[in-house]
Amino acid sequence: MSGLLFGGIEGGGTKFVCALGTETGQILAERRFPTTTPDETLARAVDFFKERSQSFGPLAAIGVASFGPLDPRPASATFGTILPTPKPGWTGADIVGPLRSAFDIPIGLDTDVNGAALGEWRWGAAQGLDTFIYLTIGTGIGGGGLVNGELMHGLLHPEMGHIPLPRNPEIDPFEGNCPFHGDCFEGLASGPAMEKRWGQIAETLQSDHPAWDLEAGYIALALRSFICTLSPQRIVIGGGVAQQSHLMPLIREKTLVTLNGYVQSPDILERIDEYIVPAALEGKAGILGAFVLAERALYNSRKG
Amino acid sequence: MSGLLFGGIEGGGTKFVCALGTETGQILAERRFPTTTPDETLARAVDFFKERSQSFGPLAAIGVASFGPLDPRPASATFGTILPTPKPGWTGADIVGPLRSAFDIPIGLDTDVNGAALGEWRWGAAQGLDTFIYLTIGTGIGGGGLVNGELMHGLLHPEMGHIPLPRNPEIDPFEGNCPFHGDCFEGLASGPAMEKRWGQIAETLQSDHPAWDLEAGYIALALRSFICTLSPQRIVIGGGVAQQSHLMPLIREKTLVTLNGYVQSPDILERIDEYIVPAALEGKAGILGAFVLAERALYNSRKG
Repeated sequence: MSGLLFGGIEGGGTKFVCALGTETGQILAERRFPTTTPDETLARAVDFFKERSQSFGPLAAIGVASFGPLDPRPASATFGTILPTPKPGWTGADIVGPLRSAFDIPIGLDTDVNGAALGEWRWGAAQGLDTFIYLTIGTGIGGGGLVNGELMHGLLHPEMGHIPLPRNPEIDPFEGNCPFHGDCFEGLASGPAMEKRWGQIAETLQSDHPAWDLEAGYIALALRSFICTLSPQRIVIGGGVAQQSHLMPLIREKTLVTLNGYVQSPDILERIDEYIVPAALEGKAGILGAFVLAERALYNSRKG
Repeated sequence: MSGLLFGGIEGGGTKFVCALGTETGQILAERRFPTTTPDETLARAVDFFKERSQSFGPLAAIGVASFGPLDPRPASATFGTILPTPKPGWTGADIVGPLRSAFDIPIGLDTDVNGAALGEWRWGAAQGLDTFIYLTIGTGIGGGGLVNGELMHGLLHPEMGHIPLPRNPEIDPFEGNCPFHGDCFEGLASGPAMEKRWGQIAETLQSDHPAWDLEAGYIALALRSFICTLSPQRIVIGGGVAQQSHLMPLIREKTLVTLNGYVQSPDILERIDEYIVPAALEGKAGILGAFVLAERALYNSRKG
């Protein structure tokens, strides 16, 4: 494959980013617009790709990295649709259908975090790995990644922010803000959870504020949980909270403490700085990952 | 492939089970002996296969489902060896080497739980699935399974018994018996943990004893953790503790409560009885899984 053009959509709950790019990850054109109704939003995406491919040439495939919950299983009858969501008008919305109708090319779709994971795998912090986790810690907490070189799916898709974690109420009386689980990982460690606990926006908490020690502790417990469950070759962390550079060394230190030598791999015991790493494409991982979703859809269509 | 003969080894910390069987899972001959030194134990396995294949014919491949920690990555320099273990004499033991020297056939090796998972996938409770978890809850707690049709590996292999779980000391003052993590899943919910907490062997606790409610609660939290991390299509539970038939309905009920409707799949919300299920091959999953490991090793050797 050489010289292919891909369309990419990073579909968020508040905004959509559409881009046209090369298989080497070069973005040739981009458009951002607010997420309104499914019909309107997808029509705008279609218009963008139609307009731009007149200048740049026909698209080989389109990839969509979308907010969820969604059905990412290509063999499923409801593939490409949004599952029940509090977001008005989007429950049952078909993301793939309008793109398929407008363009007779393969359409790939996955969760935003699996998309970002693919971007990091191809051009970022997870290159060369076949089993890794990409975690985003910001307004919400989500995770995705590859296992044996394939995106993590199964029944549906991971919801890594909602694992249970131990909380000591004497140290942290905040009961969490997850409407489903209270003090799950997301309920304890997302940006809004930090803000609610401390009464100020996470980004404004000074680097020596005890908030960060607590935050790193919860993240470390979650990483231990993921390491014990999946045995990833690396954990890549993105999202607004993780951009606090003082947080990463604390997370590494506390992950070693909570694992307590149990997983006897030099990658963890001796090279933790390369095992738990910040995302490399922050801000661009989603749209670049959408190109990889497009490429994979093209590859699978040729294979099948 | 038809009429192939496989060797299987279920290598436990206290006993080894060797069997010769068909690709349809029929066991033709079996021998059990205690796990002593690596040299002696593996020599006995080699002797068994040599003797028995004189009667039944040559083996096409051998599969080993072994206690760990071990290196199950075929491409690794330390593939097939036991990693540092408290078991005297076994640290660094090469499980695959002696078999390779004695038989010029493909040797497959994986953890005991991944082996049992394969057995359940081929002939038991996980047939037809490509992403599922097999969990054993007994003397220890371990987990394995398939993701996208491939056995779960990565850095090494899962250690699902060692995820952190929330514990309310007012309800359960027992601090857990895991020498590494105290009150991790295994430290709270293994057979020995139950025995230590209640002062009697788990199997002797009556079915209306509060021990079972607490036990089901911890298992449900762990299942939620695995479901949110991996999105398995099913969870198969084996091991001595899980053989308590009154436990399974409690686990299902509490898993629904702790998920609290978050994962919107009818497989969970409407068909939990088929989603969380007891192992079907209990007692034979390991050795049958070893045959599947043999078959996979043969397949991979032909492919490669």
